[in-house]
Amino acid sequence: MAGNKFGKILTLSSFGESHGPAIGGMLDGMPPGIPFSEQELRLEMERRRPGQSELSSPRDEKDPVRLLSGIKDGKTTGLPIGFIIENQDARPSDYQHLRTSFRPSHADYTYLKKYGTLPTSGGGRASARETAVRVAAGYFAKQLLRANGVILKAYVHSVGHLALPENFTIETQLDQKENDLRCPDSDLSEKMGQLIDSVRKKGDSLGGCIQCEIFNCPAGLGEPVFDKLQADLAKAMLSINACKAFEYGSGFRGTQMRGSQHNDPFETEDGQNAKTTTNFSGGIQGGISNGMPIYFKLGFKPVSTINIKQTTLNTSLEKTEIEGKGRHDPCVVPRAVPIVEAMAALVLADHLLRNKLYSDK
Amino acid sequence: MAGNKFGKILTLSSFGESHGPAIGGMLDGMPPGIPFSEQELRLEMERRRPGQSELSSPRDEKDPVRLLSGIKDGKTTGLPIGFIIENQDARPSDYQHLRTSFRPSHADYTYLKKYGTLPTSGGGRASARETAVRVAAGYFAKQLLRANGVILKAYVHSVGHLALPENFTIETQLDQKENDLRCPDSDLSEKMGQLIDSVRKKGDSLGGCIQCEIFNCPAGLGEPVFDKLQADLAKAMLSINACKAFEYGSGFRGTQMRGSQHNDPFETEDGQNAKTTTNFSGGIQGGISNGMPIYFKLGFKPVSTINIKQTTLNTSLEKTEIEGKGRHDPCVVPRAVPIVEAMAALVLADHLLRNKLYSDK
Amino acid sequence: MAGNKFGKILTLSSFGESHGPAIGGMLDGMPPGIPFSEQELRLEMERRRPGQSELSSPRDEKDPVRLLSGIKDGKTTGLPIGFIIENQDARPSDYQHLRTSFRPSHADYTYLKKYGTLPTSGGGRASARETAVRVAAGYFAKQLLRANGVILKAYVHSVGHLALPENFTIETQLDQKENDLRCPDSDLSEKMGQLIDSVRKKGDSLGGCIQCEIFNCPAGLGEPVFDKLQADLAKAMLSINACKAFEYGSGFRGTQMRGSQHNDPFETEDGQNAKTTTNFSGGIQGGISNGMPIYFKLGFKPVSTINIKQTTLNTSLEKTEIEGKGRHDPCVVPRAVPIVEAMAALVLADHLLRNKLYSDK
Amino acid sequence: MAGNKFGKILTLSSFGESHGPAIGGMLDGMPPGIPFSEQELRLEMERRRPGQSELSSPRDEKDPVRLLSGIKDGKTTGLPIGFIIENQDARPSDYQHLRTSFRPSHADYTYLKKYGTLPTSGGGRASARETAVRVAAGYFAKQLLRANGVILKAYVHSVGHLALPENFTIETQLDQKENDLRCPDSDLSEKMGQLIDSVRKKGDSLGGCIQCEIFNCPAGLGEPVFDKLQADLAKAMLSINACKAFEYGSGFRGTQMRGSQHNDPFETEDGQNAKTTTNFSGGIQGGISNGMPIYFKLGFKPVSTINIKQTTLNTSLEKTEIEGKGRHDPCVVPRAVPIVEAMAALVLADHLLRNKLYSDK
Repeated sequence: MAGNKFGKILTLSSFGESHGPAIGGMLDGMPPGIPFSEQELRLEMERRRPGQSELSSPRDEKDPVRLLSGIKDGKTTGLPIGFIIENQDARPSDYQHLRTSFRPSHADYTYLKKYGTLPTSGGGRASARETAVRVAAGYFAKQLLRANGVILKAYVHSVGHLALPENFTIETQLDQKENDLRCPDSDLSEKMGQLIDSVRKKGDSLGGCIQCEIFNCPAGLGEPVFDKLQADLAKAMLSINACKAFEYGSGFRGTQMRGSQHNDPFETEDGQNAKTTTNFSGGIQGGISNGMPIYFKLGFKPVSTINIKQTTLNTSLEKTEIEGKGRHDPCVVPRAVPIVEAMAALVLADHLLRNKLYSDK
Repeated sequence: MAGNKFGKILTLSSFGESHGPAIGGMLDGMPPGIPFSEQELRLEMERRRPGQSELSSPRDEKDPVRLLSGIKDGKTTGLPIGFIIENQDARPSDYQHLRTSFRPSHADYTYLKKYGTLPTSGGGRASARETAVRVAAGYFAKQLLRANGVILKAYVHSVGHLALPENFTIETQLDQKENDLRCPDSDLSEKMGQLIDSVRKKGDSLGGCIQCEIFNCPAGLGEPVFDKLQADLAKAMLSINACKAFEYGSGFRGTQMRGSQHNDPFETEDGQNAKTTTNFSGGIQGGISNGMPIYFKLGFKPVSTINIKQTTLNTSLEKTEIEGKGRHDPCVVPRAVPIVEAMAALVLADHLLRNKLYSDK
Repeated sequence: MAGNKFGKILTLSSFGESHGPAIGGMLDGMPPGIPFSEQELRLEMERRRPGQSELSSPRDEKDPVRLLSGIKDGKTTGLPIGFIIENQDARPSDYQHLRTSFRPSHADYTYLKKYGTLPTSGGGRASARETAVRVAAGYFAKQLLRANGVILKAYVHSVGHLALPENFTIETQLDQKENDLRCPDSDLSEKMGQLIDSVRKKGDSLGGCIQCEIFNCPAGLGEPVFDKLQADLAKAMLSINACKAFEYGSGFRGTQMRGSQHNDPFETEDGQNAKTTTNFSGGIQGGISNGMPIYFKLGFKPVSTINIKQTTLNTSLEKTEIEGKGRHDPCVVPRAVPIVEAMAALVLADHLLRNKLYSDK
Repeated sequence: MAGNKFGKILTLSSFGESHGPAIGGMLDGMPPGIPFSEQELRLEMERRRPGQSELSSPRDEKDPVRLLSGIKDGKTTGLPIGFIIENQDARPSDYQHLRTSFRPSHADYTYLKKYGTLPTSGGGRASARETAVRVAAGYFAKQLLRANGVILKAYVHSVGHLALPENFTIETQLDQKENDLRCPDSDLSEKMGQLIDSVRKKGDSLGGCIQCEIFNCPAGLGEPVFDKLQADLAKAMLSINACKAFEYGSGFRGTQMRGSQHNDPFETEDGQNAKTTTNFSGGIQGGISNGMPIYFKLGFKPVSTINIKQTTLNTSLEKTEIEGKGRHDPCVVPRAVPIVEAMAALVLADHLLRNKLYSDK
């Protein structure tokens, strides 16, 4: 009942701390015969890791995923895929001075309360390092979705107050290469980069939003009443470090609309398939995908690690001061994009498999 | 893998359609010895059911919960609590004319795609009727929380554009009796009532927001990395009909703050317990409760059932028109309050039990 | 984590005590479109209930299953099947004098240790009454198997020392109507009946064995490494009251064979399908069905309720005497036959569905 | 739903094939603070691996377990314990000639039917190699049991027809060092060794029985109705390669006793705790441990790999001959002893944790 497993049919079991020997996982439930490429997996891991550009942490982590089982001749075999990622560039000394104090808005205090010990330096399992396992597993989930024609794309929607228009969609730019900011508007990206840079110089940090869009998803995915598709997506997203908010379709804005505006009228173009003329439902009705694009938006708080002096308590509950000196991302939002995609892919692939159980009515 | 079970240790299995003979459930995992009262359970059910006032649907449903097992002498026994709620006031004829058309933004189309048949009249399992089971189970979860000192309260935060202040908290009004609108501000409630009334007359519907606050929750609840407390709360909330958005703590607004503003400094008043001077974290850090109040906000779309003519498709994908004539709530938000509380209680009680497994370190 | 749920994809949640208002369950995961008949379900329930003949308990229980959801027009809908069985003929007074003593080899002592209270009179949830829920759910599982061509048959293999030959198979008598003893050899049945009768007169009880055979099971069912088909069958069987032993294929006798004798050679009759010339494997190899008949045998202890004076302890751990006067079966083995079939059907149907997930390689 | 996870609270996820780069697992749910020793873990692994003596396979496998997470300063941390065991001595060439034929009573045919490909040479995931992961995880489960005073011991009860007396118990020899045969009777062990030796020379193989006894187990473990302690033990045991039979307490022999003989009378020595004067119940009543010794016996078939010519089919279903030349154990029973202990420890530790949830009545 420890929360280290995700999914029902396609399940990811994840282990490992940021400064132990390795992190890793087991992805179980992949059907046999799904093709994959180690090269593509490597590129996917690159997208997540720090040190990709000046905008993120200079720590050069390199995350070679060592695949241990469940694959043969470039395809999945139906057996569990075990993998590990060695922790090569651990420099705990950076964090040594933080060891006996609770870093504000980190997990130090709560881990101590729950497990009886402070997380090891660097955040232990609460560190974003853990998300590398999600990205590796998410790659395989994406391959399963790809084999079923589903396209999934996340991108930065805002950094601080700099945001794309509310009704922005990436639908027409799916082939475009992503930039360092992972924001599909290059002018806005430049401004975001400048903002991040200025905030970094102050030792401070920034939050932002990520939007994810899913195209060509078959109708029928989602398991009412508790495992509605949006419910499992919300859980997946809120399990990502620093994520504070989730909305799909019309989201919070929809609460101010009237039903007559918000209802999505059905129509058909070809007499074979139903569509809706608007999509305030966000591609999900009654907890089940309806074949329209699925989209949702996430809010990420400004990262808690800052290089500014803060007062806090030590483990003896005495007042103390800390000042971060370690490597840190001033804005994790661009790096979180592949993590969002990985978690969304795990949810959709899981539901794709779950929906198989209704076939042969 | 059908999504009719909720929770890990404290689990609710739910069955039943809105117009079948009965709905019901099994709540398993309740520890023995938790006191309850059938009278209190009845009151809790009253809060959810329609027909409480002019503001909601006139259908007089009455939901007597028949407890079948797992209890003895006013206490739980540790055995599964089975219960059913008969469907007494089913009037499917109201919905007959809708049977072969897809009601816009309902689950008709998606249920047909998934299960191969239209939901029966009235929405079948997609109907809000199903949530009565959640409220009944949630009552027992609340009793477990109460036995542990936890206080949990939800209320209407907005209806349409009429909203409480962003930083509103119910902390000082916990003893206050709730009004029909379930909004703790009586002036605002009156305006909300007028708005709902005027929208009802037009046959249209309204959305709104619900906020939930949890006090006196012990530190340590939540299971990183996937079952973070906020992740399980988000899933629970997004599994409720019409819920489109979830945010906890600073939520979407927090994305525009700087880390130095957003970090919650630790302090201690008594030298025994740590607190934070602000609470942008919403009582959860690293996925684990920190002992501060937990709070989150939900967005509900305007209900899809309206008494206005709409064009849609029938099951042969031919264009058609429908016009709702059945009983309907123009605004489900007040009625959703006890459902939100029930789901929050199920999540917290589940995590309270899960956290027991770490004791006796 | 309370053990009231069985299965992974096709799941049975069971609730209810023998002398409460009702017992019931929820069968979830049934695919839509599986036909069933309430009449057949009634006959299946008849097979389990006491009072069928002189040989079992005279208590006339009658178990009408009230189906509450998940069905429509004689078919499953894909939604959870909720059902209850009222407890009509509860006569707790029979058991009143046992209330404060531990009946030897019953669950009184262990339930007190676990739940903190004695089971209510009659055994509470430890009573065989609970198995009525299994038989009801098992009927639906059988229907799913039947739709897939699988045939499943259990029968009494021995009562006390009276046993069928070791290599007996029911394969050629599948259409034969079962007698009261549920033993396919009518001469032996008569002797068993006489034995049971003589033991009943002494107030004593008898044990025996049940064999179950499954024909036409497709190859491929079973999930290595932990959910091997035989492992899930063993668990299912050992979860039945009074079952003490399980063996499949060659079982304990196979431990004295040599590998060269025990290995089942492959052959083919039609060049399309492989068979084995012997079947010591019992139709399962590497935890996966191989298409040959599956067979297993179970040992049931003599039932613990006897009408003979016994010394024991009361709840104050003082020495006392009890003498059962209630209705009881001197030999539960014939009545356990439909329970064995139900549990076997639940396991096979679950694995049939689980195996669907590997399709479309 | 692939069967690679075991347990409910304490869960083992297992991955890896015999001739891939490594096997491994993740043990989740261990409470924090449980002490362990890498040296003891090594000794435990030694017990399972081949090449310990002339009696088993000469393959010198060596299984150093690399612990990757979840531990700190010689204790568990409450976080998941990830570990891998490299496959160092893989010599697939030994098995090359078997590649296109179905080895009789192996998993070749069924794996092909299920996964669409033959297991890789050496058995893939069906190989006993996989059980090394169980032994590693079982060591930690044993440590949890040890911290709770529970003692668990398995031993060889028979090899072929050579058997210990039916009522043998190891209770008085718990401190005795185990010999190569893992049979506590040294004279019998010698005979067993001679028998195995003579069978090996013929290229043939032998089966046998293992008995397991558990002392000092607290009353209260087991979760009626489906997860009765004996049901979970049976599943665990039948999931072990070559295991064909399970019985606990009086087992199959009990089926021939009368209730008046079989019922275990309660008594008390100290007025504080109840005991039973006999223990045909095998320490479990109503699915719950009663504090008496738990014991069960398992039957293992003669291992399928023999060095004798056998006719079979190839993957084109053409008749062919195979003759094993690889390394093989003529009798796996002694090597299975630590695997039986590991699986029993995983079941008991899981139920020990599950039972915590009933505390604080």
